[in-house]
Amino acid sequence: MPTQTDLNLRAMQLLKEDAEKIAQLIAVQLDNLTLPKCPLYEEVLDTQMFGLSREIDFAVRARLVNRDEGQQIIHDLERKLADLYSKILP
Amino acid sequence: MPTQTDLNLRAMQLLKEDAEKIAQLIAVQLDNLTLPKCPLYEEVLDTQMFGLSREIDFAVRARLVNRDEGQQIIHDLERKLADLYSKILP
Repeated sequence: MPTQTDLNLRAMQLLKEDAEKIAQLIAVQLDNLTLPKCPLYEEVLDTQMFGLSREIDFAVRARLVNRDEGQQIIHDLERKLADLYSKILP
Repeated sequence: MPTQTDLNLRAMQLLKEDAEKIAQLIAVQLDNLTLPKCPLYEEVLDTQMFGLSREIDFAVRARLVNRDEGQQIIHDLERKLADLYSKILP
């Protein structure tokens, strides 16, 4: 039977993996030259970010992750996306 | 320090509360005579159901809730929504 610490670590790992999947999805879209100003692109990103934020909010309320750690996952993902844009935009 | 069982119970309770909030939101919309075929209504419901399904999927992967319990929350909500519609639709 896993301990609480195992559950907390697993929760953080899952959230980080989900954030990484979003970054990869966006990287693939950018590689395929879909412009970041394209409405469909923005909708995909909004939907994915909404899904991740709901997961994180749940994990915080379930006391698996503290609020700062949860916020950090979103911040890290936003920074990663900004890096991706800066590579393709003038 | 909470035990794993506490965390599991809390996770289930949170998910059920979130499902109940969606049912209440929809009930309020229906009371205000927004028709279920209205695109805005459908979008709100789709968004909320997507958010809940992401929370449940995360809870299952984090081993807080088993897959059957998670599915049951969605099924119960769908039945509740069907009841709400049947009261206002001919």
